[in-house]
Amino acid sequence: MAVYTHLGAEDLASLIATYDVGELVSAKGIAEGVSNSNWLIETTGADGAGARFILTMYERRIELDDLPFFLGLLDHLSAHGAPVPRTIHCRDGDAYQLIDGKAVALIEFLPGVSVDQPTPAQARAVGAALAEMHRAAHDFPMERANTLDIGESLRVLQHCGGNALATVDPALPEMIDHAARLSAAWPQGLPQAVCHTDLFPDNVLMRGSSVTGMIDFYFACTDAMAYDIAVTHAAWSFDKSGGRFDRAIGRALLAGYESVRPLDPVERQSLPVLAQGACLRFVASRAEDWLETPVDALVTRKDPMDYVRRLHFYAEAGDNPFHPAAD
Amino acid sequence: MAVYTHLGAEDLASLIATYDVGELVSAKGIAEGVSNSNWLIETTGADGAGARFILTMYERRIELDDLPFFLGLLDHLSAHGAPVPRTIHCRDGDAYQLIDGKAVALIEFLPGVSVDQPTPAQARAVGAALAEMHRAAHDFPMERANTLDIGESLRVLQHCGGNALATVDPALPEMIDHAARLSAAWPQGLPQAVCHTDLFPDNVLMRGSSVTGMIDFYFACTDAMAYDIAVTHAAWSFDKSGGRFDRAIGRALLAGYESVRPLDPVERQSLPVLAQGACLRFVASRAEDWLETPVDALVTRKDPMDYVRRLHFYAEAGDNPFHPAAD
Repeated sequence: MAVYTHLGAEDLASLIATYDVGELVSAKGIAEGVSNSNWLIETTGADGAGARFILTMYERRIELDDLPFFLGLLDHLSAHGAPVPRTIHCRDGDAYQLIDGKAVALIEFLPGVSVDQPTPAQARAVGAALAEMHRAAHDFPMERANTLDIGESLRVLQHCGGNALATVDPALPEMIDHAARLSAAWPQGLPQAVCHTDLFPDNVLMRGSSVTGMIDFYFACTDAMAYDIAVTHAAWSFDKSGGRFDRAIGRALLAGYESVRPLDPVERQSLPVLAQGACLRFVASRAEDWLETPVDALVTRKDPMDYVRRLHFYAEAGDNPFHPAAD
Repeated sequence: MAVYTHLGAEDLASLIATYDVGELVSAKGIAEGVSNSNWLIETTGADGAGARFILTMYERRIELDDLPFFLGLLDHLSAHGAPVPRTIHCRDGDAYQLIDGKAVALIEFLPGVSVDQPTPAQARAVGAALAEMHRAAHDFPMERANTLDIGESLRVLQHCGGNALATVDPALPEMIDHAARLSAAWPQGLPQAVCHTDLFPDNVLMRGSSVTGMIDFYFACTDAMAYDIAVTHAAWSFDKSGGRFDRAIGRALLAGYESVRPLDPVERQSLPVLAQGACLRFVASRAEDWLETPVDALVTRKDPMDYVRRLHFYAEAGDNPFHPAAD
């Protein structure tokens, strides 16, 4: 939540001049993005009627080689009707350019706000939007491997080590064995597409019960669509601590998804395992961040146990949370 | 540079509903404000044509008792034609309200960007805008003492102590004596008004060579208008490190000011001392922050020596930088 690089008005004005979007009117650094800096930019617009954009500077983690995938995906999805911001190309046609060795891209601004406490109607709309995204992504010609799959979660937890994990919480070390079991039993051969894999409420813009935008595709990769559903289910259907599952939200999310793209039986059967794997991804990254963040650093560490609790819920509930008729 | 408090879409929507500004369309936390959280808010507007605002949540430092002064000042200055955002009052007429014990206010959004490397034409416009602000503030009925005056700078430096200051830079401890001398020689009886006292480039919005907004009045207080000029002169007329004075910028700033409100001879004579006092204020606050900030904290500490160098320049140059004819 920060702007890592200072871009002065002069830098911004000359950058904006490379696009056909009119002149710079206003620029505010926005407190979004963990690994990049973002500005909300207003210009006079190509037609003089005013226009707004998100300018993103990629600070770290994102490999330059991946940018054509991420930015091309936005173009593909928005062109196919998914509520996703398109990439603005500069006059030369480039989707990104370099400033002081860092890549920057101009992205369409979409209205809407991120909800904290979704209603079933909102969850249903999010499920439908995810399915629309999967459908729109189907003929996207590029591929990207999931670098944060169950194998990587296992490696991260092993690398932290049981002793260090125990300093965070006594129940954390057993996640290593859990990850090993899940990795061995991971479903293979499920239908794939480009997946968002990080569709938290923060990454969905809504107005009322309509999805106006899905954003932050920087974990997007080619994976099982059912895994993307599992991530979204785990991210939306619980209170913050993961202690309370909201059946109505989970059910609405799945129903919304299936209103656009029905699941096949093998996908549905795999959801309990995929959901545990989704939880483990966040357990692993949060545990690693927790152990690497100095105690007196001025950033809030996210508790990995929030996702251990979700994982236990999924492990115990079996396929019950995913059956439309179950109660 | 952060958003300290999370406000969900639901909190924001019910807050916005207390104002006559239409419905919430979009909200982005912005990376501005050291002691408060800010959001750039878009609504449908009272007339349906769309409107934008800055929502500020006062997190610390600002005393609730001071808010009527700060927010009333914005109303007074904007009503008197100064380029200052007005306060939006809620339907009940209140300028601020409390959420979870923290005050929040809705402020007009003004376009423009902050320049890094001002041109003389821009500096002239800023000088003129400052004078317009002083003129507009003249009949503002409220007063607020300057809590960061030269006496306070002296106290802060003494409280840090020479030994601690020397750990930052060997040339820093002598600032204690310098502050004591300035405090004893501080000009009295200069013409007063409400002053901004923090008019850095960050706090001025411009389009081209026009000032579209002066913002962040949370250090505003009743003080000598010449002191406000001195702060602005020190903040605008040097490179970042304070090592190089830009005579053309300093001269344009003063000329712009005097195009609206000519200085009287006593004010002009006092500028060298006031400018050193202005520098000491930033030396003191930066030194205190430097010593209080852990070395491994994820925030950038501002070097107090940037303002020690400015102070030395003013101490050695005498009234030369402030004479329109000098070169």
